[in-house]
Amino acid sequence: MPSSPTERPRSPRQRMVYAAAQQMRRQGVARTGLRAVVAEADAPWGSLQHYFPGGKDQLIAEALEWAGRYAAAGVTSYLTTTLTTTSAPTPAGLFEHLVRPWQEELVRRDFARGCPAAAAVSDSAADHEGIRTWARDALAAWRAPITQALEQMGVEASRAQDLSALMLAALEGAIILARAERSLDPFERVVRALRPALTLEAPSD
Amino acid sequence: MPSSPTERPRSPRQRMVYAAAQQMRRQGVARTGLRAVVAEADAPWGSLQHYFPGGKDQLIAEALEWAGRYAAAGVTSYLTTTLTTTSAPTPAGLFEHLVRPWQEELVRRDFARGCPAAAAVSDSAADHEGIRTWARDALAAWRAPITQALEQMGVEASRAQDLSALMLAALEGAIILARAERSLDPFERVVRALRPALTLEAPSD
Repeated sequence: MPSSPTERPRSPRQRMVYAAAQQMRRQGVARTGLRAVVAEADAPWGSLQHYFPGGKDQLIAEALEWAGRYAAAGVTSYLTTTLTTTSAPTPAGLFEHLVRPWQEELVRRDFARGCPAAAAVSDSAADHEGIRTWARDALAAWRAPITQALEQMGVEASRAQDLSALMLAALEGAIILARAERSLDPFERVVRALRPALTLEAPSD
Repeated sequence: MPSSPTERPRSPRQRMVYAAAQQMRRQGVARTGLRAVVAEADAPWGSLQHYFPGGKDQLIAEALEWAGRYAAAGVTSYLTTTLTTTSAPTPAGLFEHLVRPWQEELVRRDFARGCPAAAAVSDSAADHEGIRTWARDALAAWRAPITQALEQMGVEASRAQDLSALMLAALEGAIILARAERSLDPFERVVRALRPALTLEAPSD
């Protein structure tokens, strides 16, 4: 697994999965083409059939699985570093940890790459049940360690589920707004406005 | 303008714009095809060239403009009805007003249709500057009356901008999660978890 979402992995097989994920992030599933993936991965054309006998569907499935694992690893790094070194970790701190790499990458990549699972839902969930479930599983893989991190902070289980759904929804929406505006302004507003909802103790009504 | 997002408008021209918007909601811009739009609009093929000499780009532009106007009208209905009849309108109440029609339509349409602006951003914003700006403008048209409604409730201007960005981001993200899961569960969690952030007075830190 690469140490950043844009560092290229090593084997031709890994490079093709990675290239497919990056194309999905730029332009969705429909516009992700096998020839372009092979070219971007700098892989021999024959390796596509060799590693992905299931064709484009298999490539999309593996790209979404990779994306879910990658996103989950990013969350886990908060658990293993910040949670053990911070005296008072908070849901708001976790959200800022989730948001920061997206802010950095959006700027570095000129707002050209979003979330591959969101892109897959947008252009394929309605009529390709496989893609819908792979995207669902990628989002669930991302969300599970968020819920877990919240519980480790002491957030009650059902509220942890609520907060992880809110964090993921707000992040996905902020990515869309930021790409539309080519600006981090929506991120800054979302982080600021969300803070009162992301307390360790449930606010009293 | 139709009274619901799925009621068909009358003229062939309007029907084509509407059909394009619905196709974008189901499967994005790339998979929106002119032949399918004309067929779905039950319009003569020649009327496409007649009304849309700019081709697919013009159709996408007008579909996004329609979507922005439609969404804005939905927000304004809160201003003109609830705000004048409710003694204590709240940001949380406005958010639930924004969310409810989406929840209803997602279920009614079997989670097959999302936001056309989000779909356009996902598959086209990276390399089609026109589509990016049309999507941006549609989202801005939707957001402006949300900001305005918050200000009319007495929310201070810069916080109203923060909250409208948060509401739109959370809603866009909830739509993606709900379509992936084919469930309203993410909506219910987002509405519940967001409530502490959507108070009339800014919560004290």
